[in-house]
Amino acid sequence: MKNMTIDEFAAMVASNSPVPGGGSIAALSGALSAALAQMVANLTIGKKKYADSEAEMREVSEKAEALRHTLLEDIERDSQAYNRVMEAYRMAKDTDEEKLLRNNAIEQSARKAAEVPFQVACIAYEIMPLAEAAVARGNANAVTDGLVAAMMARTAVLSALFNVRINLGTISDADFVKEYSEKSDRLQNDVLAYEKKILELSPF
Amino acid sequence: MKNMTIDEFAAMVASNSPVPGGGSIAALSGALSAALAQMVANLTIGKKKYADSEAEMREVSEKAEALRHTLLEDIERDSQAYNRVMEAYRMAKDTDEEKLLRNNAIEQSARKAAEVPFQVACIAYEIMPLAEAAVARGNANAVTDGLVAAMMARTAVLSALFNVRINLGTISDADFVKEYSEKSDRLQNDVLAYEKKILELSPF
Repeated sequence: MKNMTIDEFAAMVASNSPVPGGGSIAALSGALSAALAQMVANLTIGKKKYADSEAEMREVSEKAEALRHTLLEDIERDSQAYNRVMEAYRMAKDTDEEKLLRNNAIEQSARKAAEVPFQVACIAYEIMPLAEAAVARGNANAVTDGLVAAMMARTAVLSALFNVRINLGTISDADFVKEYSEKSDRLQNDVLAYEKKILELSPF
Repeated sequence: MKNMTIDEFAAMVASNSPVPGGGSIAALSGALSAALAQMVANLTIGKKKYADSEAEMREVSEKAEALRHTLLEDIERDSQAYNRVMEAYRMAKDTDEEKLLRNNAIEQSARKAAEVPFQVACIAYEIMPLAEAAVARGNANAVTDGLVAAMMARTAVLSALFNVRINLGTISDADFVKEYSEKSDRLQNDVLAYEKKILELSPF
């Protein structure tokens, strides 16, 4: 999907197909956040005024680039995980054996459809310290780009977590559901606090 | 820019050029939000269970589509407005006449570079009632997509407003600065309250 044009991708989201949906948008939002954090680092590197930040900004640029590439792949990965849930629901359920196979396929695919956005949320959360460094010690002319990066990463994390939670609704393994619910709640609190902390650095 | 692939666009954001930056990302975030709101509406239209929402969802779909197309154009429009500021700064300033021309060009281009993201913020804000309708009365299977739409629109509005404010810093017309500062503060408060209200509708 990363090789679709922006226009085509947005039209595909808007269509009456459930994929790509919020999970893929979460990954894309994270990729754009990482790109902005990297841009601020790249606008800082090599500037005399920011010589003290040089080493840190090189690290920000490198890490942000890696996160961007991962998240761009996750746009498609999330849609594929959800496609497998829909395929499982379409399986035959006439005999007891078919019902068993179908239920098993639903359970397994729903687990995957919860795990993938949880991974996206964790990866997007890794952008927060990069956005913070960009805002606090990057080129001041690009401070708003660092702030936008923080907000896009926050939205990526929260959006992915909503997709974790909706898929937990169809999983019968209570331990799995409890584990992912708790992990999601913690990550949600963490990202909200982190975004607040970064926005407080805003000169506006 | 809407005809670039997602991969190419993200790479262009990440580069050491200040455009496309946070302002263009704000417009793109808004376009993706509108696409998601439309998807929820399209997943609701024609479903017996949601017959009562049919007329409203047709309206949501139509309005969201129009907002998406406008915001997709604004990705480029924001970058162009900022390019003109950079061109003004590069103008000759050797003679008094050149200085006057340059200062005037900076003032005029900075006004435009504040006006464009303010328009983006206003257009993205128009998605909020569509996201609310999608979450409250749209297909419940797609409720998380409506919630993601609300968060992406919130982030689009706030991101665009940061770009208004950073450009106000170079404008000498105090009345213009005051007007846009106040309008931006109001819109920021409104979108934060609206997002909170929509997220409270979440079943999670």
